[in-house]
Amino acid sequence: MKSFRKTLTQHTPGRVAFVNLTPEVEAAVRESGIREGLCLVNAMHITASVFINDDESGLHQDYAAWLERLAPHDPSPAAYRHNRTGEDNGDAHLKRQVMGREVVVAVTEGRLDFGPWEQIFYGEFDGRRDKRVLVKIIGE
Amino acid sequence: MKSFRKTLTQHTPGRVAFVNLTPEVEAAVRESGIREGLCLVNAMHITASVFINDDESGLHQDYAAWLERLAPHDPSPAAYRHNRTGEDNGDAHLKRQVMGREVVVAVTEGRLDFGPWEQIFYGEFDGRRDKRVLVKIIGE
Amino acid sequence: MKSFRKTLTQHTPGRVAFVNLTPEVEAAVRESGIREGLCLVNAMHITASVFINDDESGLHQDYAAWLERLAPHDPSPAAYRHNRTGEDNGDAHLKRQVMGREVVVAVTEGRLDFGPWEQIFYGEFDGRRDKRVLVKIIGE
Repeated sequence: MKSFRKTLTQHTPGRVAFVNLTPEVEAAVRESGIREGLCLVNAMHITASVFINDDESGLHQDYAAWLERLAPHDPSPAAYRHNRTGEDNGDAHLKRQVMGREVVVAVTEGRLDFGPWEQIFYGEFDGRRDKRVLVKIIGE
Repeated sequence: MKSFRKTLTQHTPGRVAFVNLTPEVEAAVRESGIREGLCLVNAMHITASVFINDDESGLHQDYAAWLERLAPHDPSPAAYRHNRTGEDNGDAHLKRQVMGREVVVAVTEGRLDFGPWEQIFYGEFDGRRDKRVLVKIIGE
Repeated sequence: MKSFRKTLTQHTPGRVAFVNLTPEVEAAVRESGIREGLCLVNAMHITASVFINDDESGLHQDYAAWLERLAPHDPSPAAYRHNRTGEDNGDAHLKRQVMGREVVVAVTEGRLDFGPWEQIFYGEFDGRRDKRVLVKIIGE
């Protein structure tokens, strides 16, 4: 069994952003030399997500607006108890749970084994600083 | 290490449906000959989910009604920016995020290692055409 | 390839609770002897979650309050069709979908490969009885 590990650093200028990670994850699969296996891609930070969906900017705006309705950004300690710790990102911890922490993707014949529209995204809900995404591939 | 890959095709007559995939995934585990490992089951389409919960039709109606409240079906481009592309399924991309894209199940002694009520479901949110589910098993 | 399996039993006194599983999962990784691989941690019951987020009690109260708004506890069969089966936990099956069933964590150099604040939690939404969490590790 082979294993491969790499981190990808993200830094988004706004609080909320979506970044297509697919080319970097595909490059990691090639670099790993693994032909058959599983590829885990996860946010290493707890106010960010990794998820798979469509590379369509209107949809990403829909996600941002919908998540804002489900868990509105509000820095006040009245809105989120988490903000009593001095943080202002209580909402981001909730948004991340809807979108998920990680994806596991099959690796088949040396490539990400994807359906026609699947793309891997980093979802940021409390940006403006460096954060990391972990890629771990096992197989042979 | 062994690996095994199979796709399962789904075609549901309505827009929203839940289909129990457990017998087909169990058959794939047997066919793989893998005794100890991990089994990934994921929707290959981005308006569908694979998730684990109870095989109870009332619960599935609860899921459908709840998801409709969280992200109502509305083909208008005013409701979802994604629909400005000519699609009418913006809601389905949101519903899928709540229910998830994939499950990873342990394989132990040649079987899916499940709790008493765990069953694997395909959740469709934009049906009426062929879609595929990927089963990838690695182990030995 | 090596594999390792262990179950962790949870019993929470209230209906809703969050329990930090990280020390027990770290102990399982050490016990497994696996240095490089993937670690699956999943609820074996369908009204409970395993998720990764911050070990901060205010945030956990935020999660509980938010999930209660998204899917209020109501034992009546009018609120949830699932409750027509004699159950009173329809809400718990919905809450679990928001928080997720499982996490997959990379194992690197014999340890859980975590970002700075990542901790693994058991999320209970219908407690007051024994439930199990499965830990399955594969790698070498």
